[in-house]
Amino acid sequence: MFFASDNAGPAHPAVMQALIDANAGFAMPYGKDEIMAQLTQTLRDIFEAPEAAIYLVATGTAANSLALATLCQPFQTIMCSPVAHIHEDECNAPEFYSSGAKLTLVGTGDKISAEALRRAYLAEETRGVHGPQRGPVSITQVTERGQIYSLQELADLTAVAREFGQKAHLDGARFANALVALGCSPADMTWRAGIDVVSFGGTKNGCPGVEAVIFFNPEKAWEFELRRKRGAHLFSKHRYLSAQMAAYLADDLWLNSARKANANCARLLQGLKTVPGFHATPEPQANMIFAHMPRAAHKRLHDAGAVYYLLEGDCHSGPADTPLPCRLVCDWSISPEQIDQFIAIAKG
Amino acid sequence: MFFASDNAGPAHPAVMQALIDANAGFAMPYGKDEIMAQLTQTLRDIFEAPEAAIYLVATGTAANSLALATLCQPFQTIMCSPVAHIHEDECNAPEFYSSGAKLTLVGTGDKISAEALRRAYLAEETRGVHGPQRGPVSITQVTERGQIYSLQELADLTAVAREFGQKAHLDGARFANALVALGCSPADMTWRAGIDVVSFGGTKNGCPGVEAVIFFNPEKAWEFELRRKRGAHLFSKHRYLSAQMAAYLADDLWLNSARKANANCARLLQGLKTVPGFHATPEPQANMIFAHMPRAAHKRLHDAGAVYYLLEGDCHSGPADTPLPCRLVCDWSISPEQIDQFIAIAKG
Amino acid sequence: MFFASDNAGPAHPAVMQALIDANAGFAMPYGKDEIMAQLTQTLRDIFEAPEAAIYLVATGTAANSLALATLCQPFQTIMCSPVAHIHEDECNAPEFYSSGAKLTLVGTGDKISAEALRRAYLAEETRGVHGPQRGPVSITQVTERGQIYSLQELADLTAVAREFGQKAHLDGARFANALVALGCSPADMTWRAGIDVVSFGGTKNGCPGVEAVIFFNPEKAWEFELRRKRGAHLFSKHRYLSAQMAAYLADDLWLNSARKANANCARLLQGLKTVPGFHATPEPQANMIFAHMPRAAHKRLHDAGAVYYLLEGDCHSGPADTPLPCRLVCDWSISPEQIDQFIAIAKG
Amino acid sequence: MFFASDNAGPAHPAVMQALIDANAGFAMPYGKDEIMAQLTQTLRDIFEAPEAAIYLVATGTAANSLALATLCQPFQTIMCSPVAHIHEDECNAPEFYSSGAKLTLVGTGDKISAEALRRAYLAEETRGVHGPQRGPVSITQVTERGQIYSLQELADLTAVAREFGQKAHLDGARFANALVALGCSPADMTWRAGIDVVSFGGTKNGCPGVEAVIFFNPEKAWEFELRRKRGAHLFSKHRYLSAQMAAYLADDLWLNSARKANANCARLLQGLKTVPGFHATPEPQANMIFAHMPRAAHKRLHDAGAVYYLLEGDCHSGPADTPLPCRLVCDWSISPEQIDQFIAIAKG
Repeated sequence: MFFASDNAGPAHPAVMQALIDANAGFAMPYGKDEIMAQLTQTLRDIFEAPEAAIYLVATGTAANSLALATLCQPFQTIMCSPVAHIHEDECNAPEFYSSGAKLTLVGTGDKISAEALRRAYLAEETRGVHGPQRGPVSITQVTERGQIYSLQELADLTAVAREFGQKAHLDGARFANALVALGCSPADMTWRAGIDVVSFGGTKNGCPGVEAVIFFNPEKAWEFELRRKRGAHLFSKHRYLSAQMAAYLADDLWLNSARKANANCARLLQGLKTVPGFHATPEPQANMIFAHMPRAAHKRLHDAGAVYYLLEGDCHSGPADTPLPCRLVCDWSISPEQIDQFIAIAKG
Repeated sequence: MFFASDNAGPAHPAVMQALIDANAGFAMPYGKDEIMAQLTQTLRDIFEAPEAAIYLVATGTAANSLALATLCQPFQTIMCSPVAHIHEDECNAPEFYSSGAKLTLVGTGDKISAEALRRAYLAEETRGVHGPQRGPVSITQVTERGQIYSLQELADLTAVAREFGQKAHLDGARFANALVALGCSPADMTWRAGIDVVSFGGTKNGCPGVEAVIFFNPEKAWEFELRRKRGAHLFSKHRYLSAQMAAYLADDLWLNSARKANANCARLLQGLKTVPGFHATPEPQANMIFAHMPRAAHKRLHDAGAVYYLLEGDCHSGPADTPLPCRLVCDWSISPEQIDQFIAIAKG
Repeated sequence: MFFASDNAGPAHPAVMQALIDANAGFAMPYGKDEIMAQLTQTLRDIFEAPEAAIYLVATGTAANSLALATLCQPFQTIMCSPVAHIHEDECNAPEFYSSGAKLTLVGTGDKISAEALRRAYLAEETRGVHGPQRGPVSITQVTERGQIYSLQELADLTAVAREFGQKAHLDGARFANALVALGCSPADMTWRAGIDVVSFGGTKNGCPGVEAVIFFNPEKAWEFELRRKRGAHLFSKHRYLSAQMAAYLADDLWLNSARKANANCARLLQGLKTVPGFHATPEPQANMIFAHMPRAAHKRLHDAGAVYYLLEGDCHSGPADTPLPCRLVCDWSISPEQIDQFIAIAKG
Repeated sequence: MFFASDNAGPAHPAVMQALIDANAGFAMPYGKDEIMAQLTQTLRDIFEAPEAAIYLVATGTAANSLALATLCQPFQTIMCSPVAHIHEDECNAPEFYSSGAKLTLVGTGDKISAEALRRAYLAEETRGVHGPQRGPVSITQVTERGQIYSLQELADLTAVAREFGQKAHLDGARFANALVALGCSPADMTWRAGIDVVSFGGTKNGCPGVEAVIFFNPEKAWEFELRRKRGAHLFSKHRYLSAQMAAYLADDLWLNSARKANANCARLLQGLKTVPGFHATPEPQANMIFAHMPRAAHKRLHDAGAVYYLLEGDCHSGPADTPLPCRLVCDWSISPEQIDQFIAIAKG
């Protein structure tokens, strides 16, 4: 019963098989492999973006940091949520890759609103050279708290960025989970909503480790390539990145895995709602649940070996009915039986 | 007939199988997987270094840049060969990771001598704050021109560095090829020869993409971990790095593959020496040949589909007997038949 | 009537005379001038810190950025007020000099409390390498809103930093104004209160452009010297920095100028309190007033040529009695007549 | 008898007087002072460059590093002489300001030739992303060895840079000395010869500390302003920089001082040529002499208190007639009597 993160699950067997298949003979290194050439076309088709420049890296932090460094000057500030992965979980990688740009935290919650973004932009430099200059906005979809921006919300945010002459980046580590939840097309959730660059995640949805960075306008493509190499993120044996991503996109594997993860989450949520004292806040929209449960339920789960993040407190000492907050993430690979077992133990 | 580089060959089937085997169920992310725990012990045993701090990254450039940034301050200069990979082939990654340290090119050739290194150190800052301060030395073993430092040469170089209070880094992208050529132990070629940190390559010798960074003194281990994360080189699904390296080390695979590559190179060299006008300079010592061959031989090979680097000139136009320089690299996976075919075509 | 800033006033004639006096003949460059040798001793005496390492730079941003970069690693975060100069007014210089460290904004106001600082430290990395690591605290004395930390408040803040193994920096661009307001010794306001490094300002209190950086523990002195040179802040004709600072400290000029500036501010405050609708918030403690006045008063002042920052709104259009916020800074050089004239016009 | 450097002499009295004159009343800070406005026009007139963007900083290293960082991307390499100040004497400041660009050393001597520059450009990246990308050239006029590029040599060098799509920077720490030696106009020695940006020195020719950075094409002016602020090189009390530079340019002071320095050097050279065993190599062209003199002559000079750089050896021990190398720099402020005294002592 592993609900700690979707970065700890296995890769999909079809992706692993693709690695085996890609392993025959020699292949041109550094992104010149044939699989990459085909994959570029596939992603352009999926995104309805025939001009898009597309690159692969192995980690989400690399995708985000390199994308933002390409959009941003070192004297600017990047607008993001106070709980954004780029702020809280990347050990200053965006600051490193951007040569010292700042991150401005917009609002106080998880999702950022167009109004808060406008306020944040307005609060930045109106006095010339003194403060950090306005820079791009980075939007996380699915958010770090499991929420999803509607297409309208995305369009409103990117409109604010454009109003200030800035670009919009989408951190799509869980892109597929958001996409199937919204039921829209990849183009709808990105460039049609004003997104300029996407970190398109594969790792959290069934790949060993691959993320695509997609520039809808290829103007800065060459700069990105140089930044990737300089950041030590260009693989010599690149085919093993290409093969992962190609298998991920083949036969709707990416969409089906995301649907499975989201369905797992819905099943878990429905079951847990029957646990006395369980409250999920906010309402989960993809494959993550943030919730409170009584200490006793946590204790039973931990004693049974369930793995997930207890965000505060100790499940082993204190009043049995004190609600303690937790995070539960459903990987695509979790079985209904594991979910049902988890629910049953939580119920006690 | 692919002799362009050992970064374009397939991974060894045993390594690929290890990836499949590692793919069952959940594994703790970010280097906390069980394979890594075992692997750390294995590498400590292999290097006779029970205290060593050991980390995995996916590219050689990451290994080198992160290791050097950990050894070096931004106001220092790193001593290296004028043809070092860190200088010529990493698009300023060492400068990036070190926040702007300089690279001082020692001597004018491929290998650096203790004497030239001492001169280079002496030439650096004796005037206080004005020039770059002395920093670590980085030694490439196998060198970029296919040469191997003897254990004495390594010891002499690191002694010079220590004399100036500096550390020594070994870029071991082809560590195994050098080791089997020297016939010594890993400890002999590293810490016993005064090396402080090694980039221990797997990618060029049969892995999809994995390199270990080994600190014999673990003092800066935590700093390295933070630099790796900040550099976006910490894999969430880290087990797929661990599994590669574990399989690479199991059953002497790494040594056997290196022996195979070196033997391939020796067979190729022996055959090519019968080609009129062929001259290898310097004498190959591992799995790389730098040589001149008459244009006509190059033309025959290219027409036959052989892939390798012609370093200057055009094999299709000009006098047939003009010697043109080339680089030939033997991957472990090349068969004797391919080598013999290459030789036969070269002979004409 | 210039109340916009103390960075726009003239230098004290004694400081200018010192520049003239220093101009005779040759002087050793790069900080080796004799004035600097004497000045170092003077500052050590003033601060009762016989071991202190002391350096001069020409701008407050250089003093702050270089000091913090010396205290901080690039994977850390610096704790500061949301309105700190290092956050709002230095165009990412601290991020630049620290190679990409983050700034964590502590609390929501001007002064930071020990409690808020502890919360901020606790909120940072408890999860290993993922988030930014805890770094030094930077405290601004006088604050950006004209407030002064008591000695107890300083001691409490630095105790929290030490509790987390971190150093404390004091941004003393208006050091003298705070010192005379508190009536304590320089040692009391710095190392006795747990401060490790001070940016000791001269520019805002009667110098053309000079700031001292004082390390009470000289352990990192050499690193600072290298960072200063690398940052292009080491003057070749350093005597002109030394001479300013030496004159500033001679005959209590620095203290007398600060007393004059603070007295100017008190006189201005007392007078403005008689202006209907005037409210100063918070209560001014040094030489800066943040206040509201009715639009009509602002209009009269602007029409009369008074120069100061109207923080919001337009004094020329809108209801006459609407309170509009402003900042008034008293330079040491302002005369009582100018102050009284300003008050008279404000009254109407 | 001080011949160690032109960075240790006094400022010209007229420049000091200008500081006093500038000290009256309030002046707008951060470069908005009226002196700067006039000065900008003056420099545009002097350079016949009505569109030029012009900025002041206090050190030559700041001028060079900020100018180059504005011309250069972090994945590029800057072409310069192996003895360039930016390489040997700035403690990695260009690497710092450019966020980690490399410096490629062109040729092996002092001046760089167009041919060597072309070879250096050709040797750089022709293989895609692997090596550093071609970047701007930085030319030092007067060179670090006291030589002067002819207008034709400058034009040839900048033509090579343009051929590769790169910009040309002139490090003019001794701009005036070169200009009066060549007897040409500032426009001739800069933009008419293809120079894009100049570091226009004041400090070594009679100012306390001021350098102008002049962009003939103002396209990147705003970026430069942000980089200057972020580098902590924007003075709040900027008028004291403006006043220095304005006085330096008034009444041909800059040209007359340079003529004086060069004439001092010529007088010194002529006299020393009568010293047995004196050899100047190369022939001095501005205000610096690199020469060999017998040890005995050095000993006499040092015993008499003369200050200059002995580049190798010890003047107090060894054979009296051994030639030892030295550097002699003539400041504008040195008197003929001091020079003649130096010569007399050298002669013995």
